[in-house]
Parts: sequence; C-alpha cells; structure tokens
Amino acid sequence: MAPLTEDLPLIDGHCHTITTAPLDDAAFALWCTEADEPSAAGTSYLDSRLGLALRRWCAPVLDLPAHAPVEEYLRRRRRLGPDEVAGRMLRAAGLSALLVDTGPVAGGLVDRSVLGTLAQAPAHAVVRLELLAEQVAPGTGADGFADAFAAALDEAVAGAVATKSIAAYRHGLDLDPARPRAHEVSAAAGRWLRDGGRLSDPVLLRHMLWSAVDAGLPIQLHTGFGDRDVALARADPALLQPFCEATLPFGVPLVLLHCYPYHRQAGWLASVYPHVYADVGLGVTQLGARATAVLGEFLELAPFGKVLYSSDAYGLPELYLIAAAQLRHSLDLVLAETVADGAASPADARRVAEQVGAGNAARVYGLS
Amino acid sequence: MAPLTEDLPLIDGHCHTITTAPLDDAAFALWCTEADEPSAAGTSYLDSRLGLALRRWCAPVLDLPAHAPVEEYLRRRRRLGPDEVAGRMLRAAGLSALLVDTGPVAGGLVDRSVLGTLAQAPAHAVVRLELLAEQVAPGTGADGFADAFAAALDEAVAGAVATKSIAAYRHGLDLDPARPRAHEVSAAAGRWLRDGGRLSDPVLLRHMLWSAVDAGLPIQLHTGFGDRDVALARADPALLQPFCEATLPFGVPLVLLHCYPYHRQAGWLASVYPHVYADVGLGVTQLGARATAVLGEFLELAPFGKVLYSSDAYGLPELYLIAAAQLRHSLDLVLAETVADGAASPADARRVAEQVGAGNAARVYGLS
Amino acid sequence: MAPLTEDLPLIDGHCHTITTAPLDDAAFALWCTEADEPSAAGTSYLDSRLGLALRRWCAPVLDLPAHAPVEEYLRRRRRLGPDEVAGRMLRAAGLSALLVDTGPVAGGLVDRSVLGTLAQAPAHAVVRLELLAEQVAPGTGADGFADAFAAALDEAVAGAVATKSIAAYRHGLDLDPARPRAHEVSAAAGRWLRDGGRLSDPVLLRHMLWSAVDAGLPIQLHTGFGDRDVALARADPALLQPFCEATLPFGVPLVLLHCYPYHRQAGWLASVYPHVYADVGLGVTQLGARATAVLGEFLELAPFGKVLYSSDAYGLPELYLIAAAQLRHSLDLVLAETVADGAASPADARRVAEQVGAGNAARVYGLS
Repeated sequence: MAPLTEDLPLIDGHCHTITTAPLDDAAFALWCTEADEPSAAGTSYLDSRLGLALRRWCAPVLDLPAHAPVEEYLRRRRRLGPDEVAGRMLRAAGLSALLVDTGPVAGGLVDRSVLGTLAQAPAHAVVRLELLAEQVAPGTGADGFADAFAAALDEAVAGAVATKSIAAYRHGLDLDPARPRAHEVSAAAGRWLRDGGRLSDPVLLRHMLWSAVDAGLPIQLHTGFGDRDVALARADPALLQPFCEATLPFGVPLVLLHCYPYHRQAGWLASVYPHVYADVGLGVTQLGARATAVLGEFLELAPFGKVLYSSDAYGLPELYLIAAAQLRHSLDLVLAETVADGAASPADARRVAEQVGAGNAARVYGLS
Repeated sequence: MAPLTEDLPLIDGHCHTITTAPLDDAAFALWCTEADEPSAAGTSYLDSRLGLALRRWCAPVLDLPAHAPVEEYLRRRRRLGPDEVAGRMLRAAGLSALLVDTGPVAGGLVDRSVLGTLAQAPAHAVVRLELLAEQVAPGTGADGFADAFAAALDEAVAGAVATKSIAAYRHGLDLDPARPRAHEVSAAAGRWLRDGGRLSDPVLLRHMLWSAVDAGLPIQLHTGFGDRDVALARADPALLQPFCEATLPFGVPLVLLHCYPYHRQAGWLASVYPHVYADVGLGVTQLGARATAVLGEFLELAPFGKVLYSSDAYGLPELYLIAAAQLRHSLDLVLAETVADGAASPADARRVAEQVGAGNAARVYGLS
Repeated sequence: MAPLTEDLPLIDGHCHTITTAPLDDAAFALWCTEADEPSAAGTSYLDSRLGLALRRWCAPVLDLPAHAPVEEYLRRRRRLGPDEVAGRMLRAAGLSALLVDTGPVAGGLVDRSVLGTLAQAPAHAVVRLELLAEQVAPGTGADGFADAFAAALDEAVAGAVATKSIAAYRHGLDLDPARPRAHEVSAAAGRWLRDGGRLSDPVLLRHMLWSAVDAGLPIQLHTGFGDRDVALARADPALLQPFCEATLPFGVPLVLLHCYPYHRQAGWLASVYPHVYADVGLGVTQLGARATAVLGEFLELAPFGKVLYSSDAYGLPELYLIAAAQLRHSLDLVLAETVADGAASPADARRVAEQVGAGNAARVYGLS
C-alpha cells in the first residue's frame, strides 16, 4: 500500500544554509553531530542513528545501495564533488519551501538564495535576534542601542517570515517574562557595550523577545537539546510557560523548536496556549529511525494544527534529505498505526500528515 | 480473540459531574480541551487525539458510524438532546463506581447523585480541600479558621471516600513537607482573610494536606498537566517526594493523579513508597489512541497493585465513555503485547487488567 | 530466525555481590525491589514487571515452566538451596566479565571472587569513593584527611577498573563543578569528623570526584532512580552537565549509571561530550519486558559506542540472570525492529548489539 505520506508536501520550517567546501572525513562527521570535539577513541559520530539514516536515505541518491558503508559513501561523495552532491540531496528532499536562519555565518556557507535554487523552492528569511543585536551594537551607546536595534529589526522583518531567539543558549529559558523597562535596557546595553562578549544579558534577551512580539512575526525559540553550549536542564520549554502566559494577549505565534527530550511539555503548552506551536526540529534529523517514536509523542496533547516540521539542517546537504525522508517515513508509520488501531480513517490520517508536513507552516508563517 | 479487557469492571477513581445544558459547537469544543481560549485560527481543539477518540468511541453510541465527521456528530447530538446523550454515554461507559470531585461547582452541572443514576453506579464523594477551606473561611477569624476547617473536614469526610488537593495549581508541589505549626496557620489564615482571593498560601495548603492525613482517607493529589493555571514544571510529582517521605509513617494512601508527562517519576514514587499510588487520570482521556503508549510507561516501575484508573471527566458525558473505552482498549493492547512477547501468561495479564481497572481502587478507597 | 543477540557476549558493567543466606519469602521480595518497607496491603513487590521477568527467565533454570507461580518458584528455590540456585543463575547469565561495586558490605554477602567463580568469569573491582572515605576518615584529622584519602585511593585503584560516586544519594547532582581548594576540603573534613554521620558534605563529595578524575580510571556515577534515599529530581543526569564540561579536558570517562527516567538526557550528554557514556543499569533489571521500550530510548541520541550494559544486581543471583536475559531479548527486539523498518542491515544491527553488550565496556574499562 502506498504510504500515507506519499508525495507529501513539506515545508522545512527551520534550517540554515550549506557549505559546498570540500570536507575531509573527520570534518564531515563533525557536521553530523551536535558535538564539537573529536569523538572518543573507538567511537564514531557516524556510528549512530544519524549515521544509519545517512546510509539509508542518502546512499541511493549517490547511486549506492542503501546501507553502503560510510567509507564507501564518503569516497563516492568526494568523487561527485560538493556541488553535485548538494544538488542531488536538496532536490531529493522535495521541499516546497525553506525557512532559513541566516546566522551565524560561518566560512564557506552559501547564501540563502543559492540554497533555494538548489532546493528548487522559495527560501524565506528568519531573523536571528541576538545576531542582529550583535551586528547593530558597535557604535551605539547605552542610550542609543534600543533605537538602533528597533530600526534594524524593522528593516530585517520586512524581508522575513519569522524571528528567532536563542535565549536558551545565552541564558536559559528561566527568564523573567516581563517586558524590561527602557532604563533597564539602557543600563544592560551599557554594561554589555563596555564588557564586550556575546549577548547573554537576560534583560537584553528579554528585550529582543519583546521587540519580536512587537514586530508581529512568528517567533521561533530554541528549546531542548542542541550543542553542548546549551544548558539542557534550563532549555526545558516548560520554563517558557510564564512567557507564554505574558504574550497570550498579543497573539504572536511562538514556535518551540526541537523540544526533545521535553517535547511532551511542549505539546502541553501548544494544547493550552492558542499562540504556541511545537516544531519537531532537530530531533527528526538526529534520531534517525527513532524519530518514529518521538513523533508519536509529539502527536499526543498538541492539536494536529499545532505541530510543525523542520530539519534544523546545517552545513551538509544530506541533512535536509535525511530529515525530509525520515519525517515522511516516520509520520507514515505513526499514522498508519493509528489507522490500523481503528483510531482514525485513512482520510483523517492523510489530513494530519498534510498539516504537519506543510499546511500548518504555510498558515502560521503566512506562506502562499 | 476476545480482548483481555472484555467486560472489564472499571471504577472511575476521579471525575467531576456533567452539564446537561445545551451547548453550541464552540462551547462543546472548549469542554474537550484543557485550554480556555478560542483555538488559534485554522486549528480546532477537536482536530486532535481527543477529537479522533470522540469520533471513534462516541459516534456509534449516537447511531453514527465510527469516524463520522465532527459536524455530523454535533448535529446528531443536538437532535437527541443533552439528557438522552448523557444517558447513552454514561451507560456505555460501563462503570462499576465513580468517585466524584464535587467542586468547583460551575453553572449547569448536575448533582453527584444524578450522575450516579445516569451511570447506573454508585457515585462516591471526594472532598476538595481548598474549596472546603474557601467555603469555611468567611466569618472565621485568623484564630478560628483552623478549628472551623477541622470541623468542616470532619463532617465532609464522613460522607466521602477520599480527599483531594490541588496544591499543584495553587502553589506548586515544591512545598515544605513539614506540618505547619498552629501559630503559622493562624498567621497565614489572618493574611488570607485580610487580603482575600483564592487560597494559595503555602502554609495553608500544607495545613490542608496534613489535615487530610489526620482525616485518614486516601488523598488524591493533582500532579502533572491540567489547564494553563498549573505551572507545569512545578507540578512534577517528583517534587512531592519530601511529602511522601514525611507521610510514610502514617500510611494514608497518596494517589498521584494524571502525572503526565512525569508519569515515570510517579511510577518510581509508587514503587518505593508503600503508601503512594499512580493514577492514569486525564492522560487516558486527552491522549486518545496514544494512551496505549503512556499506559505502557505507567506500567513500568510501579507494581501492578499501585496503578489506578480514572478519567478526570468533566462537563461532557462523552468524556466518561472516551476514557473508559480507551482504557479498556489501550490496556488490552499493552497487555496483549506483553503476552505476545512471552513476558506474561494470559491469566496474569487479565489479573493485571482487573487490578488497574477496579481492584486497586476498590481496595484503596474501601469500596465494597 | 535466530535473534540478533544469540550468544551475545555480555559484560555486566556494574553489579554488587550476592547473599547465599537462606531467605524467607518476605526477604526475597524485598531484595527484588528498591523499596525498603513492607509492601502495601493487597500488593506485592513481585506482582510487578520484575516479578513477571523472574517467573519468565528464572523459573526454567530451576526446572519449572516459565510463568510458574511465585509461591511455587520460592518453594522450589528453598528445596534446591542457595548455593545451587546461585550457581545455576550465574552460569545461565552467561557473562564474560563482571564489574563489582564492593560496598556497602551487608551481612551475608559473598566476596567478589566467589561471585566470579560462580559466574565463571572475571569479577573486577569498582572502588566506591564515599565508602572508601568513610573507611579512611577515623583517626585522620581535618588536615590529614585529604592525604589519607589520596593514599587509600591510590592503593584501591591499583586493583580496580573503575571508581564510583553516589553523590546523587548523598547530596544530589546539582553540585558546584569546581575542584574544591585544599583549605575547603580540610574545613569540610573537620566538620564531618566532628559531627559524624555518613559523608554528605558537597565539598567532600566534589573532592572525591576530582580525586577520581586524578586517579584516571573511568568514573561510574549513580544517576536517576534507585531506592528512596535518592532525591529523584536531584538525580537527573542533566544536572551533571557542568561537571561534564569541567572534566572534558581530562578525558576520564564518566559512565552515567541507570539514568531512568532521565535516560534521554543522559543520551544527549553522551552525544556531545566525548568522555561521557550512558549505562542502562538498573532499568533493564527492574522494568522487565518494558526494558525494550527504554532501551529504544537509550539508543536515540547516544552514538552506539557510548551505550553500556549493566545490571546493578545485588543480593539475589536471579537479578544477574534477569538483567542479562532481558537485555539480550530486548536489545534483539529493538534492533530487529530497526532492521524490519529498513533502517539498518542485520550486520549493522549485530555490530550494535556487540558494542552495547560487551565491546564498549571492554574498551572503556580496559578489559582484555
């Protein structure tokens, strides 16, 4: 029987751009993990759920049999060259649109428009709040920062479909939910401009968030796991509940990204706050075949109109395909089980798939 | 093969009463969710696991095919009228007994005895501690509150089978476990009587809990998810561990309700504290077919004599049936998998089902 | 088809020794649970997932049919006698090696070498840090404690393959990650020597951990559930992240034991910190057939080279067999599902099984 997700339109609601630089094997492996150190002796980042998914979904796209050894895959990849690989992977992902977080810009990453061309789909911009602040800050003073940031945000959102906060990385989600007052923002900006370093002051992070509420675009928030720069226990989306409460009257959508391993908490928030959404994010990409189990857990409390797809793909074109192929496959398994259980009709199941795959994102982000 | 849960006796260990007021479609949908705001544009609270369960389990009881569209279901429901629907649903639930939390009393809710008549089963009372305190407080003074509450509780428990605390809603479960001293209670009562508002002072909440320990009936405690009035991160039952420790010598059963998404933590508490129990509660009702996965997780560490069934049904007669039908179905799937795996005999599996369905509740609450 | 785990070599990476004292039925049941109080009226610790696993895996070893009633099992056990039962169980476990935490020494526990003889496998020593400190402390003074502990640890690790911390029990994992300074250690030792009691001072617990880092052997850390002496919410391995960060430059392996119900958090730590490992531990033993679900969750983010097997078996020889048999069976189910899903080849699946069963432990602990 054809899967319920055959030809399912997919909008990748949160990704970055790719590198087309040649990569040696160690560099390739590091792009496949959230770790940033060489792997422990006797282990490999590609001997993992993600590595299995790479060999399953990507090897055939390079004309190799599924499950070809990693070494063979990497050899074949080098022979084809980065541009050919990028084109094949992104076309195979079959995306209808991509939302691209354009920062941070590391060396060798292609422009958002190049990514869109490769994927043969519109690549919309997502404004990264903290990066924008870090770009704006130099040259402003304590008293000028807020206005300069507001002007820059105004300009940035004009060409974007969402904003994004990484407050989870810079402080944790246990933030005071209140909008900081102007004099607090000036004082915090003054301290930051004097001391330097990246933006991690909680007053300024809150100011970014409330500025994003004012801007009115959906706000994507990193929650849950990521690289080791995130304090996991402080990235539990349940800690955002006071901010969800405070922003409820404004109606601006809050899209909780990743969420794992706190995705059930995110599902609850999405079930009781009309403006809160849960995005499966990085989990689908990193968990390989276990995405099936985790997708099942995402689809518990959250109404079906509240769950979104994204890949958080970054650097490797393979990651866009792995996430897309795995999402279609795992969502099919979750929904086919629901149908087999007698809990939904096939038509209902297909409708849920279409919402999660693209319908919810199109509506929330205002894509045509 | 007949399911392991065929004709399984069920005691609904925690529910509320129903409304028989006519409901428009929007009101019906709000009774089906823990949210209290209109759903986001483009989404519906009935396009959810609960909505699918409604169409599966309730549509046939109204002479419609399973999975009939929601609109058709609501039309048919209106045609039959609230009394006919209530009777059909509650009879179809096939309950042996119900434990009814009689507060808060919203407009249009029927009396506990009416619910019992509709369900053709005894409807026992559960005393809601905070509500009782709020009813008693007016007219008492700081020094008189404790005695007045004690007298009211004495009277209330005489006709009840359990008490219930919603300290999770009013403060969070991170309470000092110690019994407050008399002068602390007086001082806290004085502040509350002066300032008004609902009861949320942690000293008074602790006083309610310790009064319930003295009263000797099993104490039901809200834990885990609920409506957005609960701070989810502070409703983790693991935060109750100091209170479990403090009350161990008294032997009064503590029944942790709902627990999700912290039900594994609840299962551990039930496994190491003889007087602690885990009740599947609202999860079975809200999660529809995903109750199977969650029930499996409930039945991990907790001994089988420690897991109880309830629906937390409230308002809609459909919710009593959805919970009961889903529990029987999901418990059958969990146990049939155990048998198919070779991990239990069918006789053992049936015995576990009987304990979870009604045997444990009958023993813990002293029902004949 | 033969399971993927047929004849799978297993190293039990963390266990204790057994008692061969005759046990009455109540004592036997208490060895099967993390509880330390008599079970609640109407319940039994053996009417549980562990009890089902006992009847499944151990009854045939005593020449009874699988699922024989507990009473029959206990009768047969008494007839055979403790030595015969111990020998049969430990041989049936089919272990290649055991790592034995030799403390605390309760009455009637056999020596580590006896355990090894019964299991027909090498039984390596694991040094329990807090116990060593408690043995060393008497007779040292505030200023002499650190040197005396260092000398004792030097001697102990010479004959051992790992150290072990139960800081989770004595304080919680929310410890300051910094290495305490000498004068802080002296002061804390002075307070402890004066006040007596078991070692629970966080400065001393940190001193133990950093001494273990200096010693260079892999450090096993209790995380997650255990008996009720552990504060569950403070045993979340995510709380260890600052210590993982602080110890990263040293490369000493940190093996997170048990982890449940926070095993996904542990898997993330193992995925981003090269020196961090996740050990399935007590979960496999206590969860019976549900170990399958939990193993699946362990094998999500953590690379396959980072997941280890252990039983935490203690007291009853049955527990070594239950854990070993259940691990082989559940790992087979998890991996067979992966293969059936098309996500891995059978050869890859077998390789993962060999790593989790013994390969990772052999490498991390330096066993030949």
